[in-house]
Amino acid sequence: MAVKKIFLGEEFMPTQWYNLNADFPSPMPPLRDPVTQKLITPDFFKPWSPMSLVAQDVTPERWIDIPEEVLGIYKIWRPTPLYRADGLERLLGYAGKIYFKHEGVSPPGSHKPNTAVAQAYFTQKDGIRRVTTETGAGQWGSALAFATQQFGLELKVYMVRVSYDQKPYRRMMMECWGADCVPSPTEETAAGREILAKDPNSPGSLGIAISEALEVAMNDRDTRYLLGSVTNHVLLHQTVIGLEAKKQFEALGDDPKVVIGCAGGGSNFAGAAFPFVADKIAGQDIRIIAAEPTSCPTMTRGVYHYDFGDTARTAPLLPMHTLGHDFVPAPIHAGGLRYHGMAPMVSHGINLGLIEAQAFDQIETFEAGLTFARAEGFLSAPETNHAVAAVIAAVKRSQEEGRKPTIFFNWSGHGLVDLAAYDAYMSGKLTRYALPQEEIERALRALEELPKVA
Amino acid sequence: MAVKKIFLGEEFMPTQWYNLNADFPSPMPPLRDPVTQKLITPDFFKPWSPMSLVAQDVTPERWIDIPEEVLGIYKIWRPTPLYRADGLERLLGYAGKIYFKHEGVSPPGSHKPNTAVAQAYFTQKDGIRRVTTETGAGQWGSALAFATQQFGLELKVYMVRVSYDQKPYRRMMMECWGADCVPSPTEETAAGREILAKDPNSPGSLGIAISEALEVAMNDRDTRYLLGSVTNHVLLHQTVIGLEAKKQFEALGDDPKVVIGCAGGGSNFAGAAFPFVADKIAGQDIRIIAAEPTSCPTMTRGVYHYDFGDTARTAPLLPMHTLGHDFVPAPIHAGGLRYHGMAPMVSHGINLGLIEAQAFDQIETFEAGLTFARAEGFLSAPETNHAVAAVIAAVKRSQEEGRKPTIFFNWSGHGLVDLAAYDAYMSGKLTRYALPQEEIERALRALEELPKVA
Repeated sequence: MAVKKIFLGEEFMPTQWYNLNADFPSPMPPLRDPVTQKLITPDFFKPWSPMSLVAQDVTPERWIDIPEEVLGIYKIWRPTPLYRADGLERLLGYAGKIYFKHEGVSPPGSHKPNTAVAQAYFTQKDGIRRVTTETGAGQWGSALAFATQQFGLELKVYMVRVSYDQKPYRRMMMECWGADCVPSPTEETAAGREILAKDPNSPGSLGIAISEALEVAMNDRDTRYLLGSVTNHVLLHQTVIGLEAKKQFEALGDDPKVVIGCAGGGSNFAGAAFPFVADKIAGQDIRIIAAEPTSCPTMTRGVYHYDFGDTARTAPLLPMHTLGHDFVPAPIHAGGLRYHGMAPMVSHGINLGLIEAQAFDQIETFEAGLTFARAEGFLSAPETNHAVAAVIAAVKRSQEEGRKPTIFFNWSGHGLVDLAAYDAYMSGKLTRYALPQEEIERALRALEELPKVA
Repeated sequence: MAVKKIFLGEEFMPTQWYNLNADFPSPMPPLRDPVTQKLITPDFFKPWSPMSLVAQDVTPERWIDIPEEVLGIYKIWRPTPLYRADGLERLLGYAGKIYFKHEGVSPPGSHKPNTAVAQAYFTQKDGIRRVTTETGAGQWGSALAFATQQFGLELKVYMVRVSYDQKPYRRMMMECWGADCVPSPTEETAAGREILAKDPNSPGSLGIAISEALEVAMNDRDTRYLLGSVTNHVLLHQTVIGLEAKKQFEALGDDPKVVIGCAGGGSNFAGAAFPFVADKIAGQDIRIIAAEPTSCPTMTRGVYHYDFGDTARTAPLLPMHTLGHDFVPAPIHAGGLRYHGMAPMVSHGINLGLIEAQAFDQIETFEAGLTFARAEGFLSAPETNHAVAAVIAAVKRSQEEGRKPTIFFNWSGHGLVDLAAYDAYMSGKLTRYALPQEEIERALRALEELPKVA
């Protein structure tokens, strides 16, 4: 009987992360100060970011050792299995092979702990005791709660109030792992009080929650702020996904020619894809595809420009694909993909022609998710369904062209805590949404005051 | 660095299930007709049960081949990893080793598909097209929905109304996998209509749901009724857990001396333990412990007696540990352990002194669950936490005795869809419950009309 999946023993796990910045044909544009717009130095981050992580953001080194302590925690769920999606191949009548990396086997059920564990480790190593972060739907907050508990750090999570009220499961997960999770805005911060003064019933937003978490970190020497996507060190830690996959492909004697991931901030996509982007830079013929929602089409309809990474304008100006920092995406169920920008390293890869982007409507993505569940059994997170939709599109395109490239995609997490979204889809409550061009153009106007990418 | 877990490749997966009935020192008492109380033949089951499964209930064969088609689906998540719980060892200061089998990696997140897939396979092989079942909290219903979709069977699930309303996530899971899930009682069956006539707002019960599912199966030649625990064939299919674990222990060069599982109907416990019970029968010194809730203490405070397996009295009289078919357990959060009886094979093992039982209050079990989450990362199902509590008790006992036996337990499923139960515990809403002896004695009186086990 055919092999369905391959694990490899723990002894084959990667012991280093891969830094694509060492191999880009031209360097990524630098970050800029959000006020002066001038280039910044690592010291900029000192008040709120652990300096070990800042060092990883700017290092030119190609390989960064994964500390033993991090590997020890990784081994709770890594190596993750590489699956042959032969059920999906049959269902689609595809003559080629489809593989996926199953990142849903981690305790919180997604790829997020790959970086959460690393960040928690370096934070305590830098002598920090307390950590803050923000979370929307809760996937990042729950992963960080798991990770900080493993390293004995205190964690306070500012969760967007509307999610806190409507999506209690990930809040409960955070509490089980010992984190303090509060609905944002709170009365505890100046940023929160300002909002509540205007609207005591504010539903909150990711922007407000970031402002609160950052404010607390900047006002306490023992507290730092950690974040779950976008920055270089997050993408670096996630490369363990693609590196493991490459070893597994090697053991199988196979080699993907199409690599796919969904992208909101860009971390799971980058983690799976960057080791293959390196092969593409080295001359191999590989298509690398990032899948995003049509309702937040950062890569397919945004521009490559400097923009604020956070609505509080505390973080640096980032050179990235963006819809403008004022852009408010429709409330789709893939909360992890509702970010106005894209990781600068992913954006640079797109700009260099190494990475291509495709957008999918949420109706298509849930349809893809149910197809995948029928074929492979597993129920995907709504974010992950964007990658599945891109796989199905890639299969159709290949069939039309009479080709059968091996396809690999990152199955970034399961959807067992997101079933209400499937329920809404199956009961016909979700609609297609065509984002008007005027709305995008209006949001992009906010970029006029900001520098262009050279 | 120490190995955290061991998978073994798919090629090492067991290809046969183990039937403990071949090795019991004396045979299990036979089943009896619920009306005449006389011994029954396999024909008794013909109207509602696939005959391939009935044949497995009564076979004297020690080893039953696992069909290729079932192995093919098993490989979606099997072999499951065997974990070294070194974090728990450290936290408890245990000088011995603790291992657990992680059954939460299946698509629905529990051990239930081990038998659901097998039952769906044999059902379609017997030429049946449609299947009914009942479900309480939904773990069995969701596993069967996954399995029947894989084999193209139609499935209708009668879900106890109060769970249907309060625990929508597993209902949504069933629908994602194509099952029709309705709140019971319904107007579609005589049994349901009778209840609704008396109480249009009936919250339902497992007994009513079973009656509905059975009625539909008995009235349609193309429909059969499948169940998720208690019967011999269910326990047989679950032995893949213990058989895999034994291979993994062999590869590790280790050998457990204490084997633990939680037991409601008995299937996950039996699946993990029976291959080790065989070793005990062969003379090895192993303790086999089944953990149950103090609020439904079938094994620790019930009696070994013939009793109705279902409240509708359609199924045979089973020789088992029981609290009486009228016993209504308190509404604890481990819904899967709220059954008035115990699998006859497990009961026979207890009666022969091969298996011992321990009961735990739900407060203790959630405390154990949070300890486990802190130590090992994973959040357990409330049922599984009974096994964790038994492990912690076994460690304390061993420490007091100055011994350090290797402990193995079955981690039967994750708790990500059961987080509301943790929330209730953490917010102090759960209480200890001492079940009065008079209540048990009152329930046991219902057994007076039924035959004793010889």
